[in-house]
Amino acid sequence: MRILVANANTTEAITGLCAAAARAAASPGTEILPATPRFGPAVISSRAENIVAGHALLELLATHAGQVDAVLLAVSHDTALEAARQIMPCPVVGMTEAACLTACLAGGRFGLVTFGGTETYRERIAQHGLSVRLVGLTGIDATPQDAVRDPEDVARRLQSAIARLATEGADSVVLGGAALAGMAPKLQPHSPVPLLDGIACGVRLLEMLVALGLPKPGLGSFAAPRGREVGGVDPALAALFRGG
Amino acid sequence: MRILVANANTTEAITGLCAAAARAAASPGTEILPATPRFGPAVISSRAENIVAGHALLELLATHAGQVDAVLLAVSHDTALEAARQIMPCPVVGMTEAACLTACLAGGRFGLVTFGGTETYRERIAQHGLSVRLVGLTGIDATPQDAVRDPEDVARRLQSAIARLATEGADSVVLGGAALAGMAPKLQPHSPVPLLDGIACGVRLLEMLVALGLPKPGLGSFAAPRGREVGGVDPALAALFRGG
Amino acid sequence: MRILVANANTTEAITGLCAAAARAAASPGTEILPATPRFGPAVISSRAENIVAGHALLELLATHAGQVDAVLLAVSHDTALEAARQIMPCPVVGMTEAACLTACLAGGRFGLVTFGGTETYRERIAQHGLSVRLVGLTGIDATPQDAVRDPEDVARRLQSAIARLATEGADSVVLGGAALAGMAPKLQPHSPVPLLDGIACGVRLLEMLVALGLPKPGLGSFAAPRGREVGGVDPALAALFRGG
Amino acid sequence: MRILVANANTTEAITGLCAAAARAAASPGTEILPATPRFGPAVISSRAENIVAGHALLELLATHAGQVDAVLLAVSHDTALEAARQIMPCPVVGMTEAACLTACLAGGRFGLVTFGGTETYRERIAQHGLSVRLVGLTGIDATPQDAVRDPEDVARRLQSAIARLATEGADSVVLGGAALAGMAPKLQPHSPVPLLDGIACGVRLLEMLVALGLPKPGLGSFAAPRGREVGGVDPALAALFRGG
Amino acid sequence: MRILVANANTTEAITGLCAAAARAAASPGTEILPATPRFGPAVISSRAENIVAGHALLELLATHAGQVDAVLLAVSHDTALEAARQIMPCPVVGMTEAACLTACLAGGRFGLVTFGGTETYRERIAQHGLSVRLVGLTGIDATPQDAVRDPEDVARRLQSAIARLATEGADSVVLGGAALAGMAPKLQPHSPVPLLDGIACGVRLLEMLVALGLPKPGLGSFAAPRGREVGGVDPALAALFRGG
Amino acid sequence: MRILVANANTTEAITGLCAAAARAAASPGTEILPATPRFGPAVISSRAENIVAGHALLELLATHAGQVDAVLLAVSHDTALEAARQIMPCPVVGMTEAACLTACLAGGRFGLVTFGGTETYRERIAQHGLSVRLVGLTGIDATPQDAVRDPEDVARRLQSAIARLATEGADSVVLGGAALAGMAPKLQPHSPVPLLDGIACGVRLLEMLVALGLPKPGLGSFAAPRGREVGGVDPALAALFRGG
Repeated sequence: MRILVANANTTEAITGLCAAAARAAASPGTEILPATPRFGPAVISSRAENIVAGHALLELLATHAGQVDAVLLAVSHDTALEAARQIMPCPVVGMTEAACLTACLAGGRFGLVTFGGTETYRERIAQHGLSVRLVGLTGIDATPQDAVRDPEDVARRLQSAIARLATEGADSVVLGGAALAGMAPKLQPHSPVPLLDGIACGVRLLEMLVALGLPKPGLGSFAAPRGREVGGVDPALAALFRGG
Repeated sequence: MRILVANANTTEAITGLCAAAARAAASPGTEILPATPRFGPAVISSRAENIVAGHALLELLATHAGQVDAVLLAVSHDTALEAARQIMPCPVVGMTEAACLTACLAGGRFGLVTFGGTETYRERIAQHGLSVRLVGLTGIDATPQDAVRDPEDVARRLQSAIARLATEGADSVVLGGAALAGMAPKLQPHSPVPLLDGIACGVRLLEMLVALGLPKPGLGSFAAPRGREVGGVDPALAALFRGG
Repeated sequence: MRILVANANTTEAITGLCAAAARAAASPGTEILPATPRFGPAVISSRAENIVAGHALLELLATHAGQVDAVLLAVSHDTALEAARQIMPCPVVGMTEAACLTACLAGGRFGLVTFGGTETYRERIAQHGLSVRLVGLTGIDATPQDAVRDPEDVARRLQSAIARLATEGADSVVLGGAALAGMAPKLQPHSPVPLLDGIACGVRLLEMLVALGLPKPGLGSFAAPRGREVGGVDPALAALFRGG
Repeated sequence: MRILVANANTTEAITGLCAAAARAAASPGTEILPATPRFGPAVISSRAENIVAGHALLELLATHAGQVDAVLLAVSHDTALEAARQIMPCPVVGMTEAACLTACLAGGRFGLVTFGGTETYRERIAQHGLSVRLVGLTGIDATPQDAVRDPEDVARRLQSAIARLATEGADSVVLGGAALAGMAPKLQPHSPVPLLDGIACGVRLLEMLVALGLPKPGLGSFAAPRGREVGGVDPALAALFRGG
Repeated sequence: MRILVANANTTEAITGLCAAAARAAASPGTEILPATPRFGPAVISSRAENIVAGHALLELLATHAGQVDAVLLAVSHDTALEAARQIMPCPVVGMTEAACLTACLAGGRFGLVTFGGTETYRERIAQHGLSVRLVGLTGIDATPQDAVRDPEDVARRLQSAIARLATEGADSVVLGGAALAGMAPKLQPHSPVPLLDGIACGVRLLEMLVALGLPKPGLGSFAAPRGREVGGVDPALAALFRGG
Repeated sequence: MRILVANANTTEAITGLCAAAARAAASPGTEILPATPRFGPAVISSRAENIVAGHALLELLATHAGQVDAVLLAVSHDTALEAARQIMPCPVVGMTEAACLTACLAGGRFGLVTFGGTETYRERIAQHGLSVRLVGLTGIDATPQDAVRDPEDVARRLQSAIARLATEGADSVVLGGAALAGMAPKLQPHSPVPLLDGIACGVRLLEMLVALGLPKPGLGSFAAPRGREVGGVDPALAALFRGG
């Protein structure tokens, strides 16, 4: 099984980080293919960057359509997730979506920790329909760069946020943000509740979906496009829109 | 006052239709500037097209940033609305958003009629937080092309859908879809409840917002980007991301 | 255009304050007509006062029916708003309703600050269907009288509440309460997010509604009453109930 | 125990009907005192009438404050319920509120049948926080007058509506509208689920509340008013606002 | 009238405490029959204990079916409430359900205090459909045993929690947990808002339901079972499942 | 990996059906262990049977605790799911839970078809927090026995219900009820949207959870019980409650 691990920003190092986490989580026999978009934001940190990244991501996926068995969006905003699910001929899962759904299997309500702002995560979880299972979101006052400079300090802040969310009722905590990919093993031993890494959850959920072999919807808003004209975009993407 | 009426698909005829409706609705002294994206779908009819259109739209807006007083998104999906609101230095309103908020001032609950599928409208209205004021959505079994070929038949179907929504509790009905822009005057005389045209509502709401002169948020997810690197995009758009 | 700015309590000074704020916000050519009820509470500060004020307000509006183009309810509880909207032949907007809907155009979620208790505002915003866009409500521990006695101290408390709401996710903050009418210009320069004054928003929304010229609903619970007998009330109000 | 059965419209016949239903439902030793407002609508059938009726009702209650042990609002809109609860020194219950809460004890979800429009009932039940337990509302196409003219036909329509709501998931059905007071015994034998009469439920809930002897809240929006000046109203009502 | 006060754990002392509280609350002529299950947890403090207790409780009720007029579940988790309501030929009420519904009659929103964890109460109140009327839940850091050892300290903590909930908007506070049964009289004098004891509320609500004499639903998920084979259970319970 | 497929009713044939479906869905190397409770309902068709079955199921699980790697509840009501998740030392998934969460990965909203009543499924999905992703539930008018007697007729009814749900907006449809286990392959070719079999989804989700190796929550309502005394139950179950 070939899983495309598609970053939505152009920072190769993050793609590499996510691909490593994906490989660590994958079953034997699952091949991880990392991919980075051709254009767009270096790091997605706002609503507008996320829109540009959405296009870049769809283009990236289109160039792999038919060559992979599944796609994991290695971007914590689940950028363009529904569009990718519509347009690709294989299962597509977002890393935050994956972590949140897995959290639903690990207890009752969950929390989320990330770097910086949380409003867009709150909205995304609402779009996933999971607001009632969300205890709260905590954005720690640090950047991914801080995590490199002073990992101990950042780990302490994360632990503290996790512990508080658990006290407030979270039975598990989602690690939000590709920059946290792979940190679960380090943080878990000191956490009172299970921690969910979106890359690990996503890889395993995709293996499940590929095994189930569900067909695509034949009607409705997730049916594959057919005969749509989209101009000025990458030929592979234009071809997907034309379908057939 | 200069209002940019920005289409998100590349069909100039729709831009023209919306611009005409906007001019008909505007106050004296308001100038309407139509604009059509450089690339993207001919018509947005699905989730994936909407993502590509979002990028095309942001690029289009960026080339007008600082030269207009307000922006009306002349696209019924309110494509990239929140991103546009974040990135532009002036008020931005989406046509369906405008119609739905105006509906809230015209009665209790409202309905929406459109051509074709309704799920993405249902989601958009939920994202606007207005689900509890929505009676229902009706997608009539016709296309914008049918409306040109047999306008009487399409008008009859719309009237029938409007009447049914009114019976189910809608105090007003939103005409969803840029293809319906300007049809309100024709349909209104035969409708039991007020009809809301997103272009007309949007133009007037923008005039209001310009008059109020609200500052942009200085923090949070709608604050303007600063120092963001976004590669491979139009220079005007890249400049907006860099800010300053 | 003539806009009735109708207070719902009997304190003329508040009517005057609101009328001044309305004039400051109105377009050239818009005439502001202040009006104060004949009976009812000096200041509405509770549920029961609000009911009496509702009747007084409807009576007041009835005496102006047909003579004004629009009505702004200059009362932060949006007292009798839906009833006024049903019974009057012109658009009616409540000041808190106006501010909250405008807040929806200025960002994602909003907060509200006011003097004293907040539960009835919470309920009103829920009735407007906007609970999911509300971050929180803060009632500062001060009275409108304090604002006259020590305006600096009250301004400091308001600023502090506004800043906290912004930190919690509010992209804008509604100034709740007629006593805060006109304070936005003073507070805005020190606030991290836009502040919304219900009077200013309401005047401009009414100008929009008048321009749109929407008909009243011909059926449903906002259709004008016809042939209703209501005894022991002001003749102008009784006449509106009889309709025709 | 003395229970005031307070109508909110001025039609004595409805007061009498409700008082009879109340007496039929009351425990031995409970005295029913019927009361009709001095002014207001003959029948409440719209939002605006409901506001005027609210004032009339508070005046009516004020004249009995201290002389009764409990108040049942014999009006299906639960007119001015929260205000009455705030201002009166004894328990106050609305008839539709009573029926809906009792429905919660009789099964999972409930329906409501009434004459005519249902939107205001939908809103009232939402205000009571019970939307998730509501299957649906059916307004049969008949008037209270029809029920007098052709009771068999109206009964048939009600039965049919009740049966359909039961099929859709209602474990019980609320009879909405004072005009249906006392009809439960006639309709019940032919209904697949229990029927709830607001007057009967309300009388018994008030007996419960009087027995429990709960104090009034000492703070918050249901605390009794103190020192409030309300001019131009009945002296008894003004006295309640002054408190003390 | 005979009301079965059925504990769901096997600690007779709690049954006795609840029965005493029930007798204190009951009308003259109401007989309280305490009952304790044959098997199951000594005290229910978790999800799994609650499931076992559900079976034990149904068995206990079955042995009294036809011999009592009503059943009060003297267990704060409202254990197996819906099942008991379905299977018993008489009204059944849960103590927390009873307190929460009564709280709805005492003001707008309510809070809940209990010993220890609150998540399962939050879920139970959501299942009752009353989440929007819930301000918050506070689990004080003490056990029922502490309440025996140092009642003053526990009372102080409870008072403090109650006062805080009132400040946050609770118009009343539910005392959650059978261990708090009967404490309302002691705590009430020092509380700013009314306190609700589930046993007292439940007894009185059952008296109301018995007086109303509602039939059981004849269809739907609360209709009595008929012809169901359930093996390996108490003969009385098996007989109830067979029905007839 | 050993997965216990635990039925919650005592009909061995259903256990066998589910085990077969589980084996068909499992990865190579996954061993399926079927298990049937010692007591309880032959078939769970109501609330009360579900409670008894909950106890029987926990007892059944307890006898396998420590000997299996994961547990699939082969009962469409997700009977005692949260309790099982709390008490067992390994992952536990319910078959309807599994299908609904998988549906979230296959599109936007989903529907559910089953035999007979749907209210308890509606409640279960609400408890899972997924109401906003549910289009509707359809209970076809047939029994599992009908499916054996006239499989063609039942298949036609199911297809018709599935097609209607798809038209109403369902991007996928959950087959609810153990009796439908294994029918997906037969129905899928004629369905416009993917069909979700809870057994297949559950087996694969459990494989994912075992692979992730999440720890149990160390606090909160899903932490394993310790030192709890539960009398009169199977020794294995009593031992789990004592923990340690």
